[in-house]
Amino acid sequence: MAIQGILRPGHAAIRVLDMDAAVNHYVEWVGLIETQRDDQGRVYLKGWDEHDLFSIVLREADAPGLDYMGFKVDSAETLEHYAKKLADAGVAVERIAEGELKGCGERIRFHLPSGHALELYASKQYIGNGLPNVNPDVWPDGLKGMKPNRFDHCLFNGDSVPETVDFMVNLLDFDLTEKITGPDGEITGAFFACSNKAHDLALIHEDSKAKLHHLSFHLDSWDDIRNAADIMSKKYIPVEYGPGRHGLTRGLTIYFFDPSGNRNETFHGGYIRYPDHPCIIWEHTDVAKGIFYYGHQVVESFVTANT
Amino acid sequence: MAIQGILRPGHAAIRVLDMDAAVNHYVEWVGLIETQRDDQGRVYLKGWDEHDLFSIVLREADAPGLDYMGFKVDSAETLEHYAKKLADAGVAVERIAEGELKGCGERIRFHLPSGHALELYASKQYIGNGLPNVNPDVWPDGLKGMKPNRFDHCLFNGDSVPETVDFMVNLLDFDLTEKITGPDGEITGAFFACSNKAHDLALIHEDSKAKLHHLSFHLDSWDDIRNAADIMSKKYIPVEYGPGRHGLTRGLTIYFFDPSGNRNETFHGGYIRYPDHPCIIWEHTDVAKGIFYYGHQVVESFVTANT
Amino acid sequence: MAIQGILRPGHAAIRVLDMDAAVNHYVEWVGLIETQRDDQGRVYLKGWDEHDLFSIVLREADAPGLDYMGFKVDSAETLEHYAKKLADAGVAVERIAEGELKGCGERIRFHLPSGHALELYASKQYIGNGLPNVNPDVWPDGLKGMKPNRFDHCLFNGDSVPETVDFMVNLLDFDLTEKITGPDGEITGAFFACSNKAHDLALIHEDSKAKLHHLSFHLDSWDDIRNAADIMSKKYIPVEYGPGRHGLTRGLTIYFFDPSGNRNETFHGGYIRYPDHPCIIWEHTDVAKGIFYYGHQVVESFVTANT
Amino acid sequence: MAIQGILRPGHAAIRVLDMDAAVNHYVEWVGLIETQRDDQGRVYLKGWDEHDLFSIVLREADAPGLDYMGFKVDSAETLEHYAKKLADAGVAVERIAEGELKGCGERIRFHLPSGHALELYASKQYIGNGLPNVNPDVWPDGLKGMKPNRFDHCLFNGDSVPETVDFMVNLLDFDLTEKITGPDGEITGAFFACSNKAHDLALIHEDSKAKLHHLSFHLDSWDDIRNAADIMSKKYIPVEYGPGRHGLTRGLTIYFFDPSGNRNETFHGGYIRYPDHPCIIWEHTDVAKGIFYYGHQVVESFVTANT
Repeated sequence: MAIQGILRPGHAAIRVLDMDAAVNHYVEWVGLIETQRDDQGRVYLKGWDEHDLFSIVLREADAPGLDYMGFKVDSAETLEHYAKKLADAGVAVERIAEGELKGCGERIRFHLPSGHALELYASKQYIGNGLPNVNPDVWPDGLKGMKPNRFDHCLFNGDSVPETVDFMVNLLDFDLTEKITGPDGEITGAFFACSNKAHDLALIHEDSKAKLHHLSFHLDSWDDIRNAADIMSKKYIPVEYGPGRHGLTRGLTIYFFDPSGNRNETFHGGYIRYPDHPCIIWEHTDVAKGIFYYGHQVVESFVTANT
Repeated sequence: MAIQGILRPGHAAIRVLDMDAAVNHYVEWVGLIETQRDDQGRVYLKGWDEHDLFSIVLREADAPGLDYMGFKVDSAETLEHYAKKLADAGVAVERIAEGELKGCGERIRFHLPSGHALELYASKQYIGNGLPNVNPDVWPDGLKGMKPNRFDHCLFNGDSVPETVDFMVNLLDFDLTEKITGPDGEITGAFFACSNKAHDLALIHEDSKAKLHHLSFHLDSWDDIRNAADIMSKKYIPVEYGPGRHGLTRGLTIYFFDPSGNRNETFHGGYIRYPDHPCIIWEHTDVAKGIFYYGHQVVESFVTANT
Repeated sequence: MAIQGILRPGHAAIRVLDMDAAVNHYVEWVGLIETQRDDQGRVYLKGWDEHDLFSIVLREADAPGLDYMGFKVDSAETLEHYAKKLADAGVAVERIAEGELKGCGERIRFHLPSGHALELYASKQYIGNGLPNVNPDVWPDGLKGMKPNRFDHCLFNGDSVPETVDFMVNLLDFDLTEKITGPDGEITGAFFACSNKAHDLALIHEDSKAKLHHLSFHLDSWDDIRNAADIMSKKYIPVEYGPGRHGLTRGLTIYFFDPSGNRNETFHGGYIRYPDHPCIIWEHTDVAKGIFYYGHQVVESFVTANT
Repeated sequence: MAIQGILRPGHAAIRVLDMDAAVNHYVEWVGLIETQRDDQGRVYLKGWDEHDLFSIVLREADAPGLDYMGFKVDSAETLEHYAKKLADAGVAVERIAEGELKGCGERIRFHLPSGHALELYASKQYIGNGLPNVNPDVWPDGLKGMKPNRFDHCLFNGDSVPETVDFMVNLLDFDLTEKITGPDGEITGAFFACSNKAHDLALIHEDSKAKLHHLSFHLDSWDDIRNAADIMSKKYIPVEYGPGRHGLTRGLTIYFFDPSGNRNETFHGGYIRYPDHPCIIWEHTDVAKGIFYYGHQVVESFVTANT
């Protein structure tokens, strides 16, 4: 099949300060679906149109942030292919047994030069998207809140952007779809896709390691972005930017925060990406337009706050 | 890269009865961009967000219909891989020299069991999408009509559906995303993807060969579907169905006809498809809902008219 | 105040064959809010953004259809003004005591030349729109189904269209916003407004008396029209036309049926009407475009079915 | 007719620093239609769905701002009624001869306690909305930019808010639809309607006289708001807030500036207002939510910049 190898963002494990407040935020307001909890007290969530058992894992902790992000691959063979390729390149690869995340098969974990823990896995329990596989409707009854259909991507903050680009492109076979360049042409931001989406993962430079800038959920339309903004106002969810648009990816967006301070995004759109399209370049002089296409102004917190 | 092999629908060559009327339809009303003509009088068009030189080729002829549809592959190696794989399977493969379509590299052509001529090619002249690669805006000025961003897919009519499914899946590595089944469970319709789209090509059974049911253009939103419907009414373009929705692919749609009787579609949406998702089945008892999710009624012409 | 006299469609009393099925349709699927029942078993409903106690009254009966439609006037003085004006013109005016509709003040009832029972009333119990009057949000939580914000208008079928136009314009001071004319220029359809809306009531000729063509509910957007269409498909609600658009009023629309066969409409848009705008004329040759702007085809049932 | 007296905002006369830059802004980017110029060099514009000759008049001057705003009334009798009512109340009323604004009948001009010049007039040359009155389409070809359908309202800044409320409500018969109250319950902002719109004019307190806060243009949909935002970004038009929403009126909005510093708004939506609806109150503690429903943050310039 044309679509093979690393398929998609499959999960992000997030630290939250107060589980009840986090569940209220992510389930009642954002509208993810709680599918299970485990004996460590972790709560597993998914967007309605995701077929596997979970895509977001919440863990109560003393500080917010990202524990790790996982990508699903198409087969056990692909998992072993990357395990070997990474090891051959001198990357430390940890194997995490099936079931450590409840319902997930064996994972391999390693770290990007930017310090972020990434995982690959080939199997996760299938539960479907709430619609039958025979004669399905277009959406299931009972959706809540902002009605996200899937966990879409993460944006990381960290250093070693050029090295991380090499890693993502050469070791993990991602496509570099767009990049941000500094005054000397050096790469300070990178957008990566393993699919026809404009991005599945992004990284923007900061002098630190392993920071989460935001976690993004995909909505069906610009009107759903408006609905999400209405809910944020009604529920006093702190909004940082939006409804707005990115020049980067062309996506329609709102940035907001969960009760622990983790930044969330609701996202719609973005172009269809093919590997024979050029990498789009955003110069540091125009990056505000790239990120905040509506307004052209850098929201201060956007470059100072992460978790 | 995860996206490799056969990339996307790259062109469809369409016969029209009157070139001036066709160009008026496709350029002024549909809003494709004319990029060139050749010395045979063929007219080459593209959607604004397509980067290659053309995706639709119009040829004046005595009868409407499809000459052939071409898919772009990622490399000359892939082209040779499929040429050999097809030949090894006993499929007649014709080689068409670079430049026969102006600006297109060498193509290989073969026929599906349903009688349709398919092509693969690895190179076509790059002209970009009207936006710079550095600090681009989200759309170019000067768009017309329905503002389609790309040629999205074709739906074919023909016999030998099961054999064509085998061909598409086993020889060309497409994913069977959805299928329609008859009273005895036999497959009577098939939707194929080589990407994360819900379909790049589809085939519905009819006792004939090599018929074009429709040619589809992608729009940005449900509001653009409304705008397209306004234009069809204003310009007295014959509409067959819509604005509406498909259960199949969940896409939002209008079916209408060009002046030669070739059916067109404006299409928005459809889910993101991954190869680990199940193939969705539409039983013959519910297929009206699958095709005409709004209304559940088969429009008579939909199953009788094609070109 | 500039807005005075007859204010708006205030209620429609509808006959249904089975109350449970009707309540399920209007409350669970359409999304009206049930506010009360009375000791006759009538069920009272409203759109969420209507402030008075009810706008739709359902009565179980042996045949579907409209008992009467009522308009709210701005004051008891206005009510008496019209009672006298109608009586002076020889129109039989019936007075219906406060409380006959639970929570509604005194009504006056009379019949149009087309046979329809119209009412005027000056007071109805105020319950608000579910939002506080101090620092309100933009919509309340808990909305269901198609989320209609109000009962918008009725379309009547009946004879004596010219006489009814005289009645509406000269006795009731409505504005004739659009009209349909026959082969000899005679008026066969009329659209009336008492507000800045493109219509609050309409009448299309048929050789009968007192028929209800449809009852219309206003939605917030074209995207809500899509959502309504999704629900109609999911719940197997019979759809006659749409999503579509009218040339008349420019409104976006879907026509569908309640379980008793009463035609409903979900409606969005329409222009802002001022009395110094010309009356728009639809000639019988173009009326299909006026009614079914998308498609230009008369749906047969549209001119044969009413209640 | 129920709609009578003062009908609608009919014109605003605006000072601009550079006429060519202003015309480029209002015609090419905002998308108003230039209908004429006069021998003083004033440029007359209208939204496409306005039927009278103009609604915006641009005058080149040394400082930006509003010269006056005019409301159309339904008849010469109404004009005289208000001329007398105002004079009887001791208000100075100036009569401006027919033709002073080219194509406009006689105007009466007077000043609100807040210092703003208001006008009433009963006649203006009718040119229609670009569509025929017989069998019209839903919009005309050739629209540009943000495609505003009409000049919607002004927001004034000035002192004497309570006195201006008395003036608008008691002398001019406007409806007070919403108000902002200060710590002691005093009224600091007022929204007035002469129609079924949520506002036709508004005033927010500032210790000055006769300031223009913004001039608003109505768009057809939330998607047109997005399109307007895209154009603002593409053309580097300074944006102050939005796409966003107001709690006040519930309208969807973007605030931006013309090249002279006059604030513009693109506006969609807002509820249908009837005079028996309560006046909505926004307390000073929640006014940020009322004005900036998305974000709840006062944009600093919003309360400091006007013209």
